[in-house]
Amino acid sequence: MNATIINIGNELLLGKTVNTNVAYLGAELANLGVPVEYTITIKDDPIAIKTALQNAWGHSDIVITTGGLGPTEDDLSKAAIAEFFGKQMYFNDDVWQYVQSMFAMRNMQTPPINRNQALVPDAFTVLRNEKGTAPGLHYREGNKLFFALQGVPVEMMYIFEFYMKQIIAECYPYAKPVIQKTIHTHGLSESRLAELFKLEELPEGVSLAWLPQTGRVDLRFYGYDIAPIEQAILLAECKIAPYIWGLDNETPAGTLLKLLDEQNDTLSLAESCTGGWVQKMITDVSGASHSFLGGMVAYSNDMKIDVLGISDNILNTYGAVSSECATEMAIRIKELTKSSHAISVTGIAGPDGGTAEKSIGTVYFGFAAKERSWSIKQIFSGDRNSIRHKASEFAILELIKSLQGRK
Amino acid sequence: MNATIINIGNELLLGKTVNTNVAYLGAELANLGVPVEYTITIKDDPIAIKTALQNAWGHSDIVITTGGLGPTEDDLSKAAIAEFFGKQMYFNDDVWQYVQSMFAMRNMQTPPINRNQALVPDAFTVLRNEKGTAPGLHYREGNKLFFALQGVPVEMMYIFEFYMKQIIAECYPYAKPVIQKTIHTHGLSESRLAELFKLEELPEGVSLAWLPQTGRVDLRFYGYDIAPIEQAILLAECKIAPYIWGLDNETPAGTLLKLLDEQNDTLSLAESCTGGWVQKMITDVSGASHSFLGGMVAYSNDMKIDVLGISDNILNTYGAVSSECATEMAIRIKELTKSSHAISVTGIAGPDGGTAEKSIGTVYFGFAAKERSWSIKQIFSGDRNSIRHKASEFAILELIKSLQGRK
Repeated sequence: MNATIINIGNELLLGKTVNTNVAYLGAELANLGVPVEYTITIKDDPIAIKTALQNAWGHSDIVITTGGLGPTEDDLSKAAIAEFFGKQMYFNDDVWQYVQSMFAMRNMQTPPINRNQALVPDAFTVLRNEKGTAPGLHYREGNKLFFALQGVPVEMMYIFEFYMKQIIAECYPYAKPVIQKTIHTHGLSESRLAELFKLEELPEGVSLAWLPQTGRVDLRFYGYDIAPIEQAILLAECKIAPYIWGLDNETPAGTLLKLLDEQNDTLSLAESCTGGWVQKMITDVSGASHSFLGGMVAYSNDMKIDVLGISDNILNTYGAVSSECATEMAIRIKELTKSSHAISVTGIAGPDGGTAEKSIGTVYFGFAAKERSWSIKQIFSGDRNSIRHKASEFAILELIKSLQGRK
Repeated sequence: MNATIINIGNELLLGKTVNTNVAYLGAELANLGVPVEYTITIKDDPIAIKTALQNAWGHSDIVITTGGLGPTEDDLSKAAIAEFFGKQMYFNDDVWQYVQSMFAMRNMQTPPINRNQALVPDAFTVLRNEKGTAPGLHYREGNKLFFALQGVPVEMMYIFEFYMKQIIAECYPYAKPVIQKTIHTHGLSESRLAELFKLEELPEGVSLAWLPQTGRVDLRFYGYDIAPIEQAILLAECKIAPYIWGLDNETPAGTLLKLLDEQNDTLSLAESCTGGWVQKMITDVSGASHSFLGGMVAYSNDMKIDVLGISDNILNTYGAVSSECATEMAIRIKELTKSSHAISVTGIAGPDGGTAEKSIGTVYFGFAAKERSWSIKQIFSGDRNSIRHKASEFAILELIKSLQGRK
């Protein structure tokens, strides 16, 4: 049992636009027991669409297209789909009513161009799109399922969640889901971890994907049976315990907030080179306000002195990028916000600002807990974005390490 | 002249991992005049790899694989590539020396598993990877080029930038680059823009892709000749002028910083619901420190009162999510940091916290300029992440609008 995803869109091939739909659909379809066999991205061109459908429909139980349904796109892709399945298109009044009602809700007249969206191939089911105007489309031939989804992620996800899941589950009630379990690590490279946890030791029936993230590594175990996967997880937990900070859908920020919440602790931040990214990661988590009070982005030296309250002396003697300044930043923001814990980050993200003693990528972290404060220096590689990202996650992962009592 | 990209990796099909390599390679290859015809993502499986190579090598001038070269991956994919091209693999001592030197630089012993990375198919050129241990590989047959690249973006980009570009340019000196020009808009939906700027008006030889972003729309014009593209841009600039904030690689934050810098103005921020995201966007831009001083994430009410200095009275009378509080936040952070301009954001990002009067997605923005302050209310749709993202960009785009004098 497997699925194929066909992504339609010139813009995906001309670059700059990142396709996030496959990552979503891949995980969801694996959960339903219909893992994705392959996925192809093609131009918005009738011949390319029909060729891709030919290959996919011959090999897969489920074929999904994404994209090519928007109001400004010509109808080429919908027409090519209809033609491939040997269907005529008709103007569906219900869809047209619905499209108009969506515009009316926003006190707008429906642009004539949106009439295209009411064209539906015969024998196709309309999957109403509450998040936009282009409907999803569904067609079934025996036990084979076809779906045409929107390219806009939020619309595509809505159609998947509200229609496709049920249709697939009803059609394939005995499909065996792919079980996936992830261990999140921090502090060791992929090769080092692979030395501690050898592939040969993996129980039968489990596959392992090593997923290096920026500055940390995830181990994803997967297979069709839970028992050997759990065995593999236990084994990994025993071999690489000091480097594990979380499991499955846990994020660094989510894990940190949970640890703080459990102890009724609160957190504040003082960021320089990460410029708000750590606080953004923390507030990505809904309910962050239980433990996170807020903080500062003390980007300029004046801001560090006048608003955060770092002494001129520290800045003059050690500089803003120093262990002393990092520690003081954490202590000051903790005092100002009356939090129980605080983190600070100050460093050189580049591309300018590096010196002989302090190269680009040099970052100092300050931590203040109830009764102590400390600092850590790290040197990160990569460009500005990568250095800032790694530093932001490092700040969170280091406080997690301390709260979890790992060394 | 065209290229095909084959992405190898089970993790890309099992979901959760987003493939950003195609977006990078697609844009770069179009620039070199070898646009991507299609891209396929397959399992790390010898038969799938050989089938994909068969199809691609038959149709494309350039075939690129990404992934399957890491130290913990078994050699299946490299072996499958060698087999497809009818080559033996040999142990390359230079590569092995280099891999060992990379580990030595980090004061580490080379794990034996990394010996795999020194296996190279006969007649393939090694493309040394300064960003990691797995080398890139290159093979040429007449005018057809094959490249095996790493899956890790920073390594893949390095190999592309330092080797592939030159190899491709030398092999296809007359390839005509695809010219792409982008207009960035804000404030109108895709359908509305399409009413103002009709596809029929597009000059011959120009294609247009509508790229809806979160909360804004990009128009990408592309083709092989610059003249009709420039004509199309002029036409668009005349039809939809009030909604255009930038061109090509400009970002909202970059444009705002440029405008501030030109006038020797400075900026500070006070964020609540966006939790640092606006400041993160601003500091993504290198050189942001010329105009950006810093700011606060005033997440808790205590932080708003005690550190930012909002009066209890405002919070008690109007609440933290109000026009009054937004304006006050902007004025206060402007005073504290002595900036010439300030932005504030306060709202309900959800999923909790919505009320009958103030639903989830309600966000107030405060602005303080040299001699005036004002506030704007917006209601955004979507989930927490989407609301926060739209609100962060909106804050920046609104100040741009005011500085550009658009209405």
